[in-house]
Amino acid sequence: MKSVWKSSGLEARFRFLMTGSRMIEQSRVLAHFCGNRNLMKAEESRVPLPEGSVSPRAQSLPAASHIVPQSDPRHACFFHIRRYGSAPGHSRVVKDRRFAELKDVDIAHFRQILGDKGVVVDSDELKVANTDWMNKYEGHSQLLLRPRTTQQVSEILQYCYAGRLAVVPQGGNTGLVGGSVPVFDEVILNLGAMNKILNFDEASGILVCEAGCILESLDNYVGSRGYVMPLDLGAKGSCQIGGNVSTNAGGLRLLRYGSLHGNVLGLEVVLADGTVLDLLGTLRKDNTGYDLKQLFIGGEGTLGVVTKVSIITPPKLASTNVAFLACEDYVSCQKTFAQAKLQLGEILSAFEFLDRYALDVVLKHLDGTRDPLPDSKQHFYLLVETTGSNQLHDKEKLDAFLESAIEQGLITDGAVAQDISQAASFWKVREGVAEAMGKGGAVYKYDLSIPLKDLYTLVEDMRSRLKDSATVVGYGHMGDGNLHLNIMAPKYDNELLAQIEPYVYEWTAAAKGSISAEHGLGFMKAKAIHYSKSTAAVQVMEGFKKLLDPRGILNPYKVLPSPSESHVISEAT
Amino acid sequence: MKSVWKSSGLEARFRFLMTGSRMIEQSRVLAHFCGNRNLMKAEESRVPLPEGSVSPRAQSLPAASHIVPQSDPRHACFFHIRRYGSAPGHSRVVKDRRFAELKDVDIAHFRQILGDKGVVVDSDELKVANTDWMNKYEGHSQLLLRPRTTQQVSEILQYCYAGRLAVVPQGGNTGLVGGSVPVFDEVILNLGAMNKILNFDEASGILVCEAGCILESLDNYVGSRGYVMPLDLGAKGSCQIGGNVSTNAGGLRLLRYGSLHGNVLGLEVVLADGTVLDLLGTLRKDNTGYDLKQLFIGGEGTLGVVTKVSIITPPKLASTNVAFLACEDYVSCQKTFAQAKLQLGEILSAFEFLDRYALDVVLKHLDGTRDPLPDSKQHFYLLVETTGSNQLHDKEKLDAFLESAIEQGLITDGAVAQDISQAASFWKVREGVAEAMGKGGAVYKYDLSIPLKDLYTLVEDMRSRLKDSATVVGYGHMGDGNLHLNIMAPKYDNELLAQIEPYVYEWTAAAKGSISAEHGLGFMKAKAIHYSKSTAAVQVMEGFKKLLDPRGILNPYKVLPSPSESHVISEAT
Repeated sequence: MKSVWKSSGLEARFRFLMTGSRMIEQSRVLAHFCGNRNLMKAEESRVPLPEGSVSPRAQSLPAASHIVPQSDPRHACFFHIRRYGSAPGHSRVVKDRRFAELKDVDIAHFRQILGDKGVVVDSDELKVANTDWMNKYEGHSQLLLRPRTTQQVSEILQYCYAGRLAVVPQGGNTGLVGGSVPVFDEVILNLGAMNKILNFDEASGILVCEAGCILESLDNYVGSRGYVMPLDLGAKGSCQIGGNVSTNAGGLRLLRYGSLHGNVLGLEVVLADGTVLDLLGTLRKDNTGYDLKQLFIGGEGTLGVVTKVSIITPPKLASTNVAFLACEDYVSCQKTFAQAKLQLGEILSAFEFLDRYALDVVLKHLDGTRDPLPDSKQHFYLLVETTGSNQLHDKEKLDAFLESAIEQGLITDGAVAQDISQAASFWKVREGVAEAMGKGGAVYKYDLSIPLKDLYTLVEDMRSRLKDSATVVGYGHMGDGNLHLNIMAPKYDNELLAQIEPYVYEWTAAAKGSISAEHGLGFMKAKAIHYSKSTAAVQVMEGFKKLLDPRGILNPYKVLPSPSESHVISEAT
Repeated sequence: MKSVWKSSGLEARFRFLMTGSRMIEQSRVLAHFCGNRNLMKAEESRVPLPEGSVSPRAQSLPAASHIVPQSDPRHACFFHIRRYGSAPGHSRVVKDRRFAELKDVDIAHFRQILGDKGVVVDSDELKVANTDWMNKYEGHSQLLLRPRTTQQVSEILQYCYAGRLAVVPQGGNTGLVGGSVPVFDEVILNLGAMNKILNFDEASGILVCEAGCILESLDNYVGSRGYVMPLDLGAKGSCQIGGNVSTNAGGLRLLRYGSLHGNVLGLEVVLADGTVLDLLGTLRKDNTGYDLKQLFIGGEGTLGVVTKVSIITPPKLASTNVAFLACEDYVSCQKTFAQAKLQLGEILSAFEFLDRYALDVVLKHLDGTRDPLPDSKQHFYLLVETTGSNQLHDKEKLDAFLESAIEQGLITDGAVAQDISQAASFWKVREGVAEAMGKGGAVYKYDLSIPLKDLYTLVEDMRSRLKDSATVVGYGHMGDGNLHLNIMAPKYDNELLAQIEPYVYEWTAAAKGSISAEHGLGFMKAKAIHYSKSTAAVQVMEGFKKLLDPRGILNPYKVLPSPSESHVISEAT
């Protein structure tokens, strides 16, 4: 493949080849996942605990300031540098003393409910479950429970609620914001053993399954029956559908199929006190009362434990194409997106963008990448993917779109992948930005949703604000209005940071943006919610939390700012 | 047009013509609307009030039993026969005495907030606003308010909340379940004057507007910019987007674009006490806390008053086709639907079905209809519509789908509309069933969501249960799992009814169906919620209602069973 379409000519010289959608997807997923992993690792680092504290893991890490010792080591502290992406700051949370300590009699009771196999006290197994997959957060729960039925989940929670034992629900533990591991010694309620497919209606494409089903297994299952899951994530080999629902996972198919708020048809949820809430409808239309399930989609396990999921799966389509395009300015990117929606319409499946700064970083730091358009230097690049049911039709639509885009001067150059490896190489350029940035220096990273018209203005504003002190790049899921703002400097520097924050959050808030596009708030951003949600909205959320979990045992310290001073001593951002 | 494709041959003899989508839509909408109107009129009838009661309108209607006089005429009673579709029964609700009576001082206060123009006390104007558009429900509010700003809505509600004045929010007043008119003397809060388009992002297709915007106006507005509203209703010329959101309106585009739970990106809502809840995001991705807006989508104005809406609009596509197909059995209908999803994939926009009984009733009773497949008599008929961006591509896909469906023996005959009038005539057959049934006799009607595989089983079970005592027909939005079960008899008959109910509701509940697919519960079905929702779920809903509106002033007597015996004296179903 090489660049074949120049802005100087209108002839349709794009080369074009249909490729197997599966292979493209996999390459992209791998790239995406690697990118995220590096991004998240750069965002935060653990710092040592003071004497008297009990996190053995943190003690091996370098020292940091702002640490206040706890006099009572039983109330184990969790200290970390929280950077809201990459900005230093610190937060300190102590264990809520209203919660009970786990006792032998509790464990004996759980053995009665689950049998020995469902009760894990082995320290090696617990260590894994106490630690998030980025190796960034570590709790020290002494107990992991593996229920196999909703009834068992209900009995467990009923007991925990009565005895005020805090609980952290856990799926595949692939979350990126510390939502799925204990902060202190919460009992881990792992749903992995509830992994049965309960029903699949081949006429409607409606799947009903238990929460512990692995996303990839579900995709394979429905895939062999002519459907696909409406979401796809880098972590699909480990993440569980219950966790996907609880975090309202976005992923790679959101532009095409929309969010889980539209695709999840029903849920079974166990409330904090053990009440089983049967909302497991399998209906596309049901207007009988408030749509309660929606609160548990993205509730991050703080309002209830999702035990079963009903979800609509779209038909699997045969043809995928990937094009890499150059634009002179951001306005052209926007217009190209509008044009793509019109002309590619029903087959458009991804619309990604990166600026020249990002491309340069990728080409410089990431081995095995090459410029898809080596003869063209522009300010912006777009990656456009189509997925449809007919290869020839898709090709014709893509050709027509590209021709009109170049005729209108929206794009100045472009290339269409001719095979799977070329498609993967295009995706690698786009998905490799995060990894490449990490290799280029100290990076301040922000994952934001911003209305499309303002999306790149923040990048420009930041660039002009920081002048020569840093390299500011912008890229992301343009089709979803999801910007990755990355700021690269030779080293982390408080002066530079003060230029970036809270400016970036204030800017995002003023633009009615979101400080967490798709990862959720978890533990990491619970106290930052006010940047994206009004005080009135947070108060209503707190009201819902209190209504559904009056004792606050479900996934404490997550999503919402801690409700009382009693267990949040101080915070500085 | 005539039937040209026979099951005996495989040659692609379907005739096919692209038609303007707009004209087809309009014909369909008209048919749909007329159908619904007749359907709803047949469902319920008002009965006279006893002496001492104060609904002048009801007194002109025929008498009915089960009426209990109210001793105190100040507590005006609302009596009606509630038939859950068509089944007799009765329900009696008296005014909640916790609410205050409207006084002159209140009206004077509202004049201060709104000026004279915003305060309506004229009896003719009030009569219209007190009456639902089906002429079935009539309240007797003495005051209608027309705020022009969110601030005014807030001030009104703050005042009403403090003084315990009950309020009914009202949009276009086109609802079908008595949700948008007062039951007694609630203050009518009409949003019609809040009708400004606030923003439209032509790159993203995201529209932000006030709640009082008419759906059709919005569709025209975005239509001239290359987009369509993601929903379309028969009532679009009158209904308002705030009402659409509040009732989670389904409509004609749901199969293609999904429900408002996926398409609404943000809301501004005023709570019962006047608190303005700014959830007006314009983002496709935002995972910062619980997705509160979802509760107000379908909340039917009982949790808050929607004042602004942010919604994503899909691109407008150029090509529409309609095919009418014959199937031997329901299993073939299901398989044809699966096949259509695979082969028509991204262009499938409607998949409707009716049985032969329904077709016969239409042909017999509805002037101007004719059998689209006169040479073929089958048990089931399908109406399949496609909408796409490329006429030739759509034609090829439809041809291929039809060819393979007939090759596989899924369909035995079919015809493709060659022009707009033929497409409209196909739609008239499907949408005319309700009207035709009404002309054929006394009709018991049920609008249900049922999982696809069981959808027609209910019709068969009912037919075998009722034997020769009635004609049982099934039709509906197969693509949405939405069944219209209609039972026609020479006259209404309690014995027959006892055979139908509660069987039909129990059957629907056992199949995890919904007793209200898309119309909501409103006043009509508030007490029937238990057929579709568990006690635990209803209790959570009641908790949310109490949390957001502790005094219950917002749209009382709607959606949920009345919370206390104090204002529900008796009910019999």
